This record gives sequence, structure tokens and C-alpha cells, in this order.
Amino acid sequence: MNVESYILGKWHMGESGGSDLFNATTGDLIGKASTAGIDFGEVLDYSRSVGSKKLRSMTFHERARALKALAMHLMEKKEEFYKISALSGATRVDSWIDIEGGIGNLFTYSSIGRRQMPDQTFCLDGAPDTISRKGGFSAQHIYVPKKGCAVHINAFNFPVWGMLEKIAVNIVAGVAAVVKPATVTCYLTEVVVREIIKSKILPEGSVQLLCGSANGILDHVTSSDVVTFTGSASTANMLKSHKNVMENNIPFNVEADSLNCSILGPDAAPGTADFDIFIKEVSREMTVKAGQKCTAIRRTIVPADYVEDVQKALIKRLEKTTLGNPLAEGVRMGPLASKAQQTEVLEKIMELRKSCELLVGGTTGENIIDGSADKGAFVAPTLLYCDSPFEKTDIHSVEAFGPVSTIIPYKNTDEAIELSHMGKGSLVSSIVTSDSNFATEVVIETASSHGRILVLNESCSKESTGHGSPLPGLVHGGPGRAGGGEEMGGIRGIYHYMQRTAVQGHPTMLTKITNKFIPGAERVESGIHPFRKNFGQLQIGDTYTTHKRTITEADIVNFANISWDHFYAHTDETSLDGSFFEGRVAHGYFIISAAAGLFVSPKKGPVLANYGLDELRFIKPVYVGATIGVKLTCKEKVDQEVKEDEIPRGVVKWQVDVTDETGETVALATILTLVAK
Amino acid sequence: MNVESYILGKWHMGESGGSDLFNATTGDLIGKASTAGIDFGEVLDYSRSVGSKKLRSMTFHERARALKALAMHLMEKKEEFYKISALSGATRVDSWIDIEGGIGNLFTYSSIGRRQMPDQTFCLDGAPDTISRKGGFSAQHIYVPKKGCAVHINAFNFPVWGMLEKIAVNIVAGVAAVVKPATVTCYLTEVVVREIIKSKILPEGSVQLLCGSANGILDHVTSSDVVTFTGSASTANMLKSHKNVMENNIPFNVEADSLNCSILGPDAAPGTADFDIFIKEVSREMTVKAGQKCTAIRRTIVPADYVEDVQKALIKRLEKTTLGNPLAEGVRMGPLASKAQQTEVLEKIMELRKSCELLVGGTTGENIIDGSADKGAFVAPTLLYCDSPFEKTDIHSVEAFGPVSTIIPYKNTDEAIELSHMGKGSLVSSIVTSDSNFATEVVIETASSHGRILVLNESCSKESTGHGSPLPGLVHGGPGRAGGGEEMGGIRGIYHYMQRTAVQGHPTMLTKITNKFIPGAERVESGIHPFRKNFGQLQIGDTYTTHKRTITEADIVNFANISWDHFYAHTDETSLDGSFFEGRVAHGYFIISAAAGLFVSPKKGPVLANYGLDELRFIKPVYVGATIGVKLTCKEKVDQEVKEDEIPRGVVKWQVDVTDETGETVALATILTLVAK
Repeated sequence: MNVESYILGKWHMGESGGSDLFNATTGDLIGKASTAGIDFGEVLDYSRSVGSKKLRSMTFHERARALKALAMHLMEKKEEFYKISALSGATRVDSWIDIEGGIGNLFTYSSIGRRQMPDQTFCLDGAPDTISRKGGFSAQHIYVPKKGCAVHINAFNFPVWGMLEKIAVNIVAGVAAVVKPATVTCYLTEVVVREIIKSKILPEGSVQLLCGSANGILDHVTSSDVVTFTGSASTANMLKSHKNVMENNIPFNVEADSLNCSILGPDAAPGTADFDIFIKEVSREMTVKAGQKCTAIRRTIVPADYVEDVQKALIKRLEKTTLGNPLAEGVRMGPLASKAQQTEVLEKIMELRKSCELLVGGTTGENIIDGSADKGAFVAPTLLYCDSPFEKTDIHSVEAFGPVSTIIPYKNTDEAIELSHMGKGSLVSSIVTSDSNFATEVVIETASSHGRILVLNESCSKESTGHGSPLPGLVHGGPGRAGGGEEMGGIRGIYHYMQRTAVQGHPTMLTKITNKFIPGAERVESGIHPFRKNFGQLQIGDTYTTHKRTITEADIVNFANISWDHFYAHTDETSLDGSFFEGRVAHGYFIISAAAGLFVSPKKGPVLANYGLDELRFIKPVYVGATIGVKLTCKEKVDQEVKEDEIPRGVVKWQVDVTDETGETVALATILTLVAK
Repeated sequence: MNVESYILGKWHMGESGGSDLFNATTGDLIGKASTAGIDFGEVLDYSRSVGSKKLRSMTFHERARALKALAMHLMEKKEEFYKISALSGATRVDSWIDIEGGIGNLFTYSSIGRRQMPDQTFCLDGAPDTISRKGGFSAQHIYVPKKGCAVHINAFNFPVWGMLEKIAVNIVAGVAAVVKPATVTCYLTEVVVREIIKSKILPEGSVQLLCGSANGILDHVTSSDVVTFTGSASTANMLKSHKNVMENNIPFNVEADSLNCSILGPDAAPGTADFDIFIKEVSREMTVKAGQKCTAIRRTIVPADYVEDVQKALIKRLEKTTLGNPLAEGVRMGPLASKAQQTEVLEKIMELRKSCELLVGGTTGENIIDGSADKGAFVAPTLLYCDSPFEKTDIHSVEAFGPVSTIIPYKNTDEAIELSHMGKGSLVSSIVTSDSNFATEVVIETASSHGRILVLNESCSKESTGHGSPLPGLVHGGPGRAGGGEEMGGIRGIYHYMQRTAVQGHPTMLTKITNKFIPGAERVESGIHPFRKNFGQLQIGDTYTTHKRTITEADIVNFANISWDHFYAHTDETSLDGSFFEGRVAHGYFIISAAAGLFVSPKKGPVLANYGLDELRFIKPVYVGATIGVKLTCKEKVDQEVKEDEIPRGVVKWQVDVTDETGETVALATILTLVAK
């Protein structure tokens, strides 16, 4: 196998040297990876000046559509990836997480980009702030793509997912990536990148790949770039303390392996469904990917009284976990990714055994199907027990990155909470309980140490995605030992590749810059009713001032009759004492309906439908005799993706200001219409 | 003056050694500050275990009310602070920014805490995500206060604002602070802290103060703490690369002085109002606080053709800036904060002069009123000119932290954009122009290098807060040289002291944990209409299923008549071809009005008023003959602060699900009511 890098628009074979790559099961040499001869400075410049420049010029929707096309393309090629994945020791199930899980992230981020982001190159953050009392000076936060590139330094355990979960995000943000997979499994990343490049779906320069050492690349990053690292805490620390990274405040997002825990609730006693769910979850997390997951349950925290039952039940399940060649029938768990990992994990188990009792495992495994402990990187599922977790604290700091977990007893809720924190920051913790009081206390009191918390029980276990699965819509990362970073998290993740900037100025200027009507901006009345303009013709700020309407007693009575809403404030003069109202008040829904009656242009035209309404507020009661009028202003236009047989259209949001004869505002709303192009 | 520290609940005089403190104008010794004998580990533990523990148990509203009371108390004492402030060389105007600007931040954050945050100890982030298809597994991001403390290492230039802008935020977040002001002006911070402590408004342990060296404090911080630093980039770099900070991923928020710029637009030619506004803004930013502002305009970027006019106009204004004792009449600019600063700034000017022409200043000043260049730390306003800013790049990296700016020419928009980026990240830039195309291009293309951008012109200049003023509602911080951090920014700032955690589980469990109805959660129908329950009695999830109503042609006709909304889709059978509709459709506002008619309980009771409506969406058209029904569910309760003579009450948000006879949803909304306690 020739494992190459993809740089500067072409595939590159390392000139010399490099690392040997091995089949994790058989130990056979499968190829070499070398970056010799690559100028990393040049690679980063290419990402910035070719890939990012092009991506930045595309809108969120355009970037998101490219992602979807790419996801569909990769799904078609998935069986090729499964074949290569087995070389790393991954079973079909393990590979599914890596390959289809990774492609799933592309689909999800495509959806986020198309549905939650605007069809422009940048986006707004939060509502505008009116700063001056007179309203002539305001501010709006915006997010623009960083002008550099993303440099992703990834872990060996998920060669596909690890790349795709990250590039899905930076591409939607409008930033190109240089991907540096861990060398030991880079051959799988490489075949996926080959398909990405071949497909020509992403603009050239969007993704570059470095297979082999990337030593020295951090000398070339700038504060316009974003570096991400996934892997061990010690490597993370070494990389982020790099002189250039420190001195130039280069954003550095770390997701490090951590000592995640799962807590069994006191209500989930042996014999309950929740107890069985806990046992299944812990054993699954220990054995999937041979425990090589940054989210795996390393600390199994259980009520002291249940320790014996938990031990028995877990040992029983783990003993059924057949080890072997992931391609052989009946194999539930493959080897670790490399012999070096095997050595490392066995050493860490020895370290833990100084303060813990070994219950099962701790070896290179027995009865290995179609493989051997000698050639393959096998480690048997290993369960330990720590009887005094407040004194013997190695369990809270030593991580064996394999199929290894330690049972830890607790006496009461305070102890469970304290033990949860003793991991000093983790990616995820879980609580298995149906007791909502216990769950609430533990969640709120321990959330500060975890990036994600799963509350698992009978009511959700069948639909649960599990303790160990990061999801594209949820933040993935955690404080302290877990690195302090955040990946994914829906829109939240996109912002890590963008710069948030507060823009101040006159509302009219801010409206022009942001393409959204900022309160206080100039309103333009052209004489043409804005409902007569199509999506393209409409300009932000286009306004229509309506005729007026005097609200009568008959209106209130009739509206009560047609709506059936006989709430006393509208209908009963005798019950108003101590209420907010000085007389029978018009229904709020009548006011907004009458407003529509004033601003709607009835004749068939580009406005296709009333789609909804946001932030309607009734500011001042309207009584009999008041006269209302409306200002309708085009506030925001959001392009809509439609199917071939549908009318091309967009959503237009309108600012509706309803005032009375004194000029005071009685109601405010944002209404949503569909407008044809 | 005895300058003491406030630690562990008492005032502490350093045992020995320490730093001498001097009057900036006269050079007289005013006191000593020493932290000798203080155990920083103990100080941090006290913040965590006393201050943060208490603050965390309070709700956002309780914390915010304490801030408001504190702000009012400090305003009463402000004249004492002005007296001390003059010792630092600050004029009345300079002190106003520091003192009243700082107290203003407390007011603003109190308002944010009371109005934008819930009345509970933690808050939610974003909408819930339904993860499983069947809806039995969801997620909600929450923010909880970090369990550690904030350690604020502040700059010398704003001894009051620098403290208050930060503690306003961490206190609302529920985290206590240890404040370490720059020693040179710590005497002013100290008198303010004395008032904070005396007032007993904040819980004990919320604020501790270290006057003097805090060397070694970073050995004691943990990943539950947040360290903030404001000051020079070099000190920032030294501190954040501290071993403990790096190894334990301790959040470190840096706001560093940067080479902020202001760009004069090509339209703002000499003779225009915008030109004059630019000149005034630049000269003001150079001289306020004697230019010792991290946001000051260091790079004055102007069209090459206007260089001469800009030089003349600026020199004219700067020559009028009278230097002297800030307490003396007629003085417009005081000395720098210390003789050390004076030396440093004069050195930096000499460095800049290697590549720039000196236009005015560059000395310790002349005609000093009631002071002397010898004893006081004076520096004259200094203007330089750099003729080739792409070759002579010192102007983009050398910062003279005093009344110093350099004029830089540009030939076209691309050059202006490039020069703006060459500062490699700044806190703020401004653009003086009335040309919205120029403004839009420069804002969008340069935003990635700046934390804030002000677009200034005639339309907003009278109401503008100015280039150099950070505002509590806007992010303060910037990428790259500016440190990569963020302070303030409204709610955005609060989150920096909290941990964001994704919580997963069954919607019913998430509803119990978050106190907000999560779609898919159990709905409880007790037989009592929820409108008959007061604020306290209502439980999240309380639900009422209404009777039903068949929609008739008469309804549509009558609704058109009462609303005056004769939009063709409701009234004209002949114009529906090519529209979304198969027949005359009921008005959306009729559906929501009829829904209210079904769910409202008319008799006078705890529901006081219909307050508004959020996220109304019309999902499916309703035609004649359809029969609708409603489920009304208590979704969220938000306590309301009321005046003494008002009815004690809260906002209750209700989930409204309108379905038709097929069980399909036709409309969804969140309605807002006021409910008595």
C-alpha cells in the first residue's frame, strides 16, 4: 500500500524514511507513511489562499449542499472503507461507528448549514442592541469565517469519524482544513480522502492530508488559523505549549481522553431493569473499539451495597466477549490498533493493580479466534476494583486506553458527586437511574466537570445513543483533563472557526451591513405595497404605512363570538377590579388579526402564505374607541431550498408595529411569509 | 496610606517588603503595597469554599439584585474615589470613565441577570434536541457555574473599571473573584473594595483583593477556576504558559493591548463633517487617559491624498491639549501612571521613529501646568507618519502605550483592508465613512481581525460611545495580538464562568432536571384547568386537552369580515390555481384565536393577561369541515420582579398544540401569560 499525502492539489509520496504501518491482527507490514519533502508552511498557505478563500466566498447554504453531496458520495463507497478498516483491528460494528458515524456527521452539518444558517457568507449573533437613548446608535454582533485554515491533529482510534466530524464543521464555517491523522491508522483516512478528492465536490484546497509526521507544522500556524487536537492529554499539552501557539494566541481546541465515569443510582438495585441496563452499557463501552474510545467508561461508580452484584454481572458478560480477527465469524472484540498500544495498556493495568484488585482480564487474552496474542495487539477485557477510592486515587488519574474499567463504591449521593469530580474533568459521564431527584442533584452538582451527561434508564434505553457516542448536535469536549475544548455541538461548533465581532453604528448603516432590519433604521416607502414585490425585488427596510381602524365595542363582542374566547377581561365589565384593565379590553389576537387586515394586500401576488409569527408582544391594552394603524417593514429575507416541483420562494420576515392614535405602540411582532421569487 | 489586601474575611497588611507607590504628577511617595505572608492557596480555597459556594446557591436574580444594590452604594461614595483617582494622573473625565463607567457595568449586568437570565441557579443553552425518531430520547444543553473561582489579574490604567467590569460578570455567573490589580495604582482599587466589603451587600468571600505581588498564585489554580488577564501581550504570554495553567487546561481569558486602527473613508474628504469627526475621534482617543487605553487608536489609516490635511488638522488639535496636574484648572491631559511608564513610552517612540517621521510630540511635554516634566510622568501627545506601511512594518507591531499614534496612508480599499489586518488582531477598529458600500466591504473583510468595529459618521456621531469605549453588552477582546479572549458581551461574558454541558435522557427526565417542558415529556392532566392554578401551584407539564370545534365556511367569512383580512387565499375560490391551497383556507390568525377560544378558562382567576406569543407556526392548512382541538401544556415559568403596588406574578409560557380530526398538527405556538402568585 502506498500511503500518500494530498497537498497543493496533488498526491505526494514521502521522499524517504517515514513510519511502517502494520495490520493490527496479524502484525504484517502493510505500508509506509512519510511526509519527507513537504513544506508545511506552503501547505498551510495553500489552504488559506486557495481552499479557505473559495469556501469563504460561498454561502452557508452552498457549503452545506456540498457537504450533503459529499456524504452521499462517500456512502456509496463505504464498503471499500470497511475493508481497509478491518486492518486496524475494528470489527464490523466498530467500523460502522467510524465510517457511517463519520458520514452521518456530514449529513447533520449539511442540515444545520441549510436550516439554521443564513444563505450568506457570514451570520449574526444574537439580537441587535440599541445603545443610545435616542436610538441613533446601535450594535449587532456578527460572525465571519476566520481567514486562516483549520489544522486537525487527530487520534488513531477513529481514522474516518475523527476527520469527518471536524471537517464537516470547518467547511460549513467557510474554512479549509489540513488533516493530520495519527500515523498508525492513516491508511484508512487516506482512502477516504482519495474519494473526497476524486469526487471534486468540495472546492480544491478545502481538504489537504498529511500522512506521516507533521513535526514542525505548528511553527507555521497564525492567529487566523485554528488548531484542533484529539488524543492523549500529554501530547495535547506538548503541542499547545508550542512557542508560536502561545505567543500568537492561536486558537487551540483540545479534546483529550479522560476518566469518564458512569454512576449507578441507588434505586437501580440488582434485579431491576435499570441495573441490567447499567451492566450492558458498561460492558459495551469497555469492549466496543476494544475500549479505545476517549469517551469509554473508565470509572464504574456503584452503591457500595451493590458492588458484589455488579462485579458478578459484569464478569459474566465480559467472559462472553470473544477476541479475535475482526473478520472472523463470532468475534466480538478485535485487537488494539498496534502492538505499541498493547504494551502501553498492559503497563497501565499493572499501574492500576498497585491500588486495585484485578477481577478479570489483565492479559493479552485467551482463545483468540484466527489470531494470536503474540502477533496481534490483543488485550483481554479487564475489570478492576478499588475499595477505597478517596485514598487510592490512581483510578482518578491513570488511564488505560483499552478494554479496561474499575469498579468504585460510594456510600451516599455526596460521595458519588465527589467521585465524579475526582476525574478532574471528563468528556462524558452517565447516571443510570429512574429517580429524578437523584438524577437532578447529580446532574446539576457534577455538570461543571463534564462536557456531556447521559441520564439512562428503562424509559429511554432502547432509543438511547449510549454513553460513548458523541453526537454532531451536542458539544463534544470537556473541562480540565478532557482538554477544555469543544467540538461539534451544532451551530456552537461552527463558531469555533469564526470570529465574533461587535459592529457599532447607526441602525441604517448596520442594516446595510448585516442585511437585517435593525430597529431605528431608515424605512423606505416607495408607494408600491411590499406584498406586490417578489423575493428578489424586496429590499430590507421596505415599509408600508397602513390606513387606520377605530376599535369599537362591536369588534370586541364579535371577536369574542367568532373566537369563542370569553375571557372575563374582554367580556365582563364587573370583574375588572384589581385586574390590569380599566375596561373591557380588545383581545390581543384581535389586534394582530386587525393589523393583518390593515397591512395585507388581498389580491393574488408574490406573497404565497402566512407561515408563522415570532415575538408577538402586547405592549398596551386597546380599549373601545382607540384607533390603530400599522407599519409593516421588510426585516429579513431567508432563501428557501425547494424541490423541483415547488414554487421557488423564500421566507420574508416582516416587522409589524401597531400603534394607537397617541402614537404609542400597542403591539409588536415579527411575521413570517413565504414569498415567490 | 496603608494599602492592604482583603483576604479570608479580613484586611491584611503585608508583613514586609513590597512596592512603593507614587503620585504620578508629583512623584511623592503615597504608600506601600505588600502581599508578604499571604498564602495564595488558602486565598483561592476561601473563594471557592466560601464565596463561590454561597453565590452558586443564589439564583441569577438574587445575584443580580445584589449587584444593583452594590452599584447604588458605590455611586453614593464616588467622590471619595475621584479624590484618590487623581493621584494616578487621571483628569476628572479620565476618572469618570474609570469610576462611573465601572459602576455602570454593575448596573448593566444586574439588568442582564434579572431580565435575561432565569430565577434559578443555572440556565439552559439553546433549544432541546430530539435525538431519537420516536421522541423518547432527547438532549438539552445547560450552563452551570464553575465550582472554582475567578482570578483577575488587571491592568494599571483602569483600577476601578478593570475590577468592576469583570466581577460584575463573574458574580452574576455565580462565581467568586480574587482581584489582583496592577500594583502601581492598586491604592484606588483598594478604596473601592473597602466600600464593597463595608456595605456587606455581596456574600462574604465573593471578592478578595491582593495588593502587591501575586507571584506564585498560578501554582494554585485548578481547571474549575478561570484566570483573566488584562495588560501587555508579553506578560499575558508569560502567565498563560505557566506549567500548571497549561497542564491542567485552566481557562485563561486574555485581553491584551493591541494596535487598534481607525480608517478614514475615501468619501470623508477634508471639508466634510465626517472628516472633522475622524480628527476629533483620533485626537480624543490619543489624549483621554493620556492614551493609556488598550483600545486607543495607534494606527490612523487615511487615504494617501488626505495625509497632509489629516496631519494639519490633528496637529492643530493636539497642540491645544494642555498638560499638567489633573487637579489644576485648564488641564486636558495628565501624566502617565508612573515614571516607569514614561520611560517605556519614550523608548517605544524612539523605536517607531526609526521607520516613521515624528510630526509632533515625542517629548516629556512643555508648559506643564502645576507640575514638572522632571517629577511627573508626562509625555506630550505624539503623532508620527509612516510613508511605506507595507515595507516599514514596525507600526504594526510596536506599541507605545501612551498618547501616541501614527498616520498611515492607503491607496485603495484592498490596501486599507490589508493594513487593518496587519495589526495581527486587535480589540477594536473604526471606520469613519457614510458610504455603506465601503463600510460593508471593510467590516466584512476585516472583522476576522477585530473584536469590535465602530462605523462612525455624521448620522451617529452625537450618540456614539466612541472608538475606545468597551460596553458591557458587547464583547471586549480580540483575536491574535489582542489575546484571543472575550470579556463582557452581555450574556456571552457570563458563560465564560460557567460550564456548558449537554444533558441527554428521556424528555420527562430532562423536564424534571431543567424545569422546562421538553417535547415528548409526560403531560399531566389533573382534571383542574391549569388557568385555575396560581404561579406557585403550576407544575411544568400540567396539561389541558380542550373540547373541539368544527371549522365552517361561516367562520372563514366572519373572520374575514371582522379582521378585514381579505387575502385571496381565504376569500377568492377562483385565484387558487398554482397556490399552496386546495380551497379557501382558514386564516392562520383565526386558528390561533379559535385555539384560545378552546383553551381559555373565562372566569376571573390567577391568569392576569395574555402577554404575547412566540414561535407560532402554521403547519397544515385548515379547510372548511376540519375539526380542531388543542393541548395546552405549562412549558416554563419565569418569575417576575414587580413594584410594591403591583400584583405579585410571573410569566408562564404555554405550549399550544393545535391538531385536526386526523390527529395531525395544524399549528404550534408558545403563548405567554402573566399569572398571579
